[in-house]
Amino acid sequence: MTKDFNYSNLKLGIIGGGQLGKIMAVKAKKMGFHVTILDPTLDCPAAQVSDKQIVGGFFDKDKLEQIVKDSDVTTFELEHVDTSVLKKLYDEDNNIHPSPYLIELIQDKFKQKEFLDKKGIPVPKYKNVQTPADLESFGLPIIQKARKGGYDGKGVALLKDKDDLQNALPGETFIEELVDIKKELAVMVSRNIEGQIACYPVVEMLFDDRVNICDIVIAPAKVDSKIEEAARKMSIDSIEALDGVGIFGVELFLTNNDELLVNEIAPRPHNSGHYTVEACATSQFEQIIRAVTNLPLGSTKLITPAAMVNLLGEEGFTGEPVIEGIHETLEIDGLSFHFYSKKETKPFRKMGHITVLDDTVDGALEKVEKAKEILKIKGSKKV
Amino acid sequence: MTKDFNYSNLKLGIIGGGQLGKIMAVKAKKMGFHVTILDPTLDCPAAQVSDKQIVGGFFDKDKLEQIVKDSDVTTFELEHVDTSVLKKLYDEDNNIHPSPYLIELIQDKFKQKEFLDKKGIPVPKYKNVQTPADLESFGLPIIQKARKGGYDGKGVALLKDKDDLQNALPGETFIEELVDIKKELAVMVSRNIEGQIACYPVVEMLFDDRVNICDIVIAPAKVDSKIEEAARKMSIDSIEALDGVGIFGVELFLTNNDELLVNEIAPRPHNSGHYTVEACATSQFEQIIRAVTNLPLGSTKLITPAAMVNLLGEEGFTGEPVIEGIHETLEIDGLSFHFYSKKETKPFRKMGHITVLDDTVDGALEKVEKAKEILKIKGSKKV
Repeated sequence: MTKDFNYSNLKLGIIGGGQLGKIMAVKAKKMGFHVTILDPTLDCPAAQVSDKQIVGGFFDKDKLEQIVKDSDVTTFELEHVDTSVLKKLYDEDNNIHPSPYLIELIQDKFKQKEFLDKKGIPVPKYKNVQTPADLESFGLPIIQKARKGGYDGKGVALLKDKDDLQNALPGETFIEELVDIKKELAVMVSRNIEGQIACYPVVEMLFDDRVNICDIVIAPAKVDSKIEEAARKMSIDSIEALDGVGIFGVELFLTNNDELLVNEIAPRPHNSGHYTVEACATSQFEQIIRAVTNLPLGSTKLITPAAMVNLLGEEGFTGEPVIEGIHETLEIDGLSFHFYSKKETKPFRKMGHITVLDDTVDGALEKVEKAKEILKIKGSKKV
Repeated sequence: MTKDFNYSNLKLGIIGGGQLGKIMAVKAKKMGFHVTILDPTLDCPAAQVSDKQIVGGFFDKDKLEQIVKDSDVTTFELEHVDTSVLKKLYDEDNNIHPSPYLIELIQDKFKQKEFLDKKGIPVPKYKNVQTPADLESFGLPIIQKARKGGYDGKGVALLKDKDDLQNALPGETFIEELVDIKKELAVMVSRNIEGQIACYPVVEMLFDDRVNICDIVIAPAKVDSKIEEAARKMSIDSIEALDGVGIFGVELFLTNNDELLVNEIAPRPHNSGHYTVEACATSQFEQIIRAVTNLPLGSTKLITPAAMVNLLGEEGFTGEPVIEGIHETLEIDGLSFHFYSKKETKPFRKMGHITVLDDTVDGALEKVEKAKEILKIKGSKKV
């Protein structure tokens, strides 16, 4: 069932008003749409570039109903939302993408994994934890993950040995084999209402080991073409299996045996796709807007190699953000600076990002590493 | 005299809230700045993506003073403003760029031409009109131009013969020889507070003959490298002569004898630079923000050939805009669609634009010409 919109006055709702919502809103405004943001923080990053904000939480059923009813179509910048009311609204009017049923499935990382596994998508060996003994089913060391609510390295524990078992995560969790990782890869995949699929290049994620947050992304990944093709196919297969509409960040492990496994899927724009704003013909943020508003998808062509670094709040600081090194950083050739206008910095909070375009991916990587050294987000208060 | 700003909370004022102000605001928000727009139309395109709008006209001295006093730095998306109050404020605090003195000079196209001429920049032969007889000083046919207030082909008359003299423009005007034009070219030049210059590629402008509005721009221009170099040098020389801070659109004539002449200069982002959003490492809209906030300029590198077409309101329609052909248009590979969210369409009003990226400039041109055929901005009312 496809809809025809009045594109000169299309009303788009975005649940979530952080940096992903901000750039989504900008791309929707580029196409002339009216944008409403639902977010609990007044004047959140996305609201600053949107027509309207509904101030409310992601588990506030009334506010969720309000944004959906006020909008021709509603989408997400995050998956941690109450799906019960959204499912009812979706059944009535089919104007929420991705579907809240899909969001619900993805919220539970165990169910997500089980779903992909049953569809024949390779995933790491996993098992639900029902009793403490389950933690040791595959032996130790093991990765334990919260089934719900984790992000940016939160809700993940490495249990190295028996002593670590006392630090096991509480609540509903599952375990996953400790994969022998050569590289972490990611692929953005978009699928529109009519089922058209567009797949972005394979990129490589480098992590800040201190906090397990993806820190640097390079595009394209330095992998051979066979692996690239396999990663793209596996990512497309995953989104087709999920019948997803919108944009999806598919995170993959490349093992030391050159085996590919799907780690997890984000049903929204993803940090690993920020580079698309400057480096691709159509950004991930415009692509989701096209996908959910019944428009043809844009070209995912990589126009130039690129690298992206997240700007995380420095350890030791909080309060109003203070940017250090901006002049020297902006002297770097081919650099684009994004700052999210969050009112408060915290250690390791994502405050902005930088993308550098270069003729080679190594050149781009070198430049973002330099930028990472120079630019610091400190704060008005010391912690 | 350079200033140091608190870049995590820099307050930028933009005088004018149309499409140029809209994309400027988006790029300022990308860098985390607080943006205030001065424009008489409530909820104008730029206000929709900004933090604040001051509703007021460009000759309202109080409102002009308010935006300057509220902002760390103020800039322009248009040059038709009252400069008297701005000059006073500039003398006090030096926080308006480009300088209102420069804006005032550029407002008067005769003075602008005289200034460039005296600085040794080649311009078409020109003469101020003080008596009706002056119209015929160079013989006929001749181009007559209003000294102030013209834009998009308004304020320009072609006087072909004696009969046309009765249609001469009233008010303060000047005449210009009818140049034998092979191509109309344009170059965006940016210069920051410290005098750093960045020059974009030379592009070629194609005009809609019905209304003399620049219709299609191709980047790079199809000219040989000698002409390209000369056009860039002439454009840089012009902006250095003007001591300009900001971004400037330098329009040039290439004559049939391969002579280059400066036609006129816009002291702000320019229609001929829209392509930079998708095709260059740094867009003209980000560049002006960098230039006026005392930041280093970004790379002006053309990453890929591109073509841009303006989407003008169709003849015969007014009222709320209605977009026709959006699905078919967005199927064109490498196409980016901009719609400005103006509440009302009018014949030939600039309602949006399309940029297409392609491996060749001819390919890009072919695609924008196709898009121009398909996509129509009609209106809710017939005129």
